[in-house]
This record gives sequence, structure tokens and C-alpha cells, in this order.
Amino acid sequence: MTYEVKVYVTLKEGVLDPQGSAVKNSLHHLGFGGVEDVRIGKVMSLRMEATEDTIDNQVKEMCDKLLANPVIEDYSYETEEVVSS
Amino acid sequence: MTYEVKVYVTLKEGVLDPQGSAVKNSLHHLGFGGVEDVRIGKVMSLRMEATEDTIDNQVKEMCDKLLANPVIEDYSYETEEVVSS
Repeated sequence: MTYEVKVYVTLKEGVLDPQGSAVKNSLHHLGFGGVEDVRIGKVMSLRMEATEDTIDNQVKEMCDKLLANPVIEDYSYETEEVVSS
Repeated sequence: MTYEVKVYVTLKEGVLDPQGSAVKNSLHHLGFGGVEDVRIGKVMSLRMEATEDTIDNQVKEMCDKLLANPVIEDYSYETEEVVSS
């Protein structure tokens, strides 16, 4: 079966996010003074072949091995079966 | 009111994603041959002060001016009011 998988990788709380700070400052300069905090993460959209039994384990293994750095990042994911029309 | 805003920025269809291709190749090398496509985007979590009337317009303006590049990227967002306990 074909799955659409979305993996969200975000920095753990407490880990400095210089890119987020830079964006926050830029937003302030543009006049958006109400912005108090910005954190930047990644979203990865994967299309993959897998079976219902293996999809979860495969995605977790991909995250642990490559997509996320478990020392400083958390991840979450959603899987959705692609129904061919 | 305080809002938690999530902004998802993804490359438009048809725009080359070399980072995604590199991740796909790495996943193949790790044995995940079922992966057919990988696209990489950004997710930005903002905490901001705004009113119910202005929050949508503010977020759209921030996306158009800074957070996304409308030539090659699409964005979507979710807003959620933070209820202080």
C-alpha cells in the first residue's frame, strides 16, 4: 500500500533556536511587535510503499536513524493511506 | 489574547527539492527502498499577542512579507488561542 507520511521535527524545549530568534527580530522590525516567540522546525512529506503492519516501525526507524537528531530534536508523524482512484 | 500559531511552508509542486532528494537517497542507502518521494518544508511555531479580529490578517501578512517566498513556496497555518490557567 502507498502511504503519505508527514514527519514533524522540532527542537526540544530549552534548545537554543537562533534561526527562530532571527525571524522574531525581523518580524518586530516589520512592525509585528506582538510576536513573543518563534521556533522553527521541519516538516517532511514522504510517499512510500509499506504494509499496514510495518509502516509505523519503518517511520520510527527512519526518524531515529536519519530524519531527527534525538539529542536535540523531537519528532511526531502522521500516516495516511493513499487510495488510488 | 495570546495565540499559538503554526505556519507550514512547503515548496510548490514542480519546484526542485534537492534537500528532499538527498534525504530520499540516504533513506534508500539505509534500506528503506519503499520511499518514493521526499519533500522538505518548514514548520514555524509562533506565540503572539493579537485580537480575534486581527490574528488572521497578521499571520497572512507575516507569511507574505517574511515567512514564505510566494514565488516558490506555499503556506498554510493554524491558530489556537492560549487559555491561561
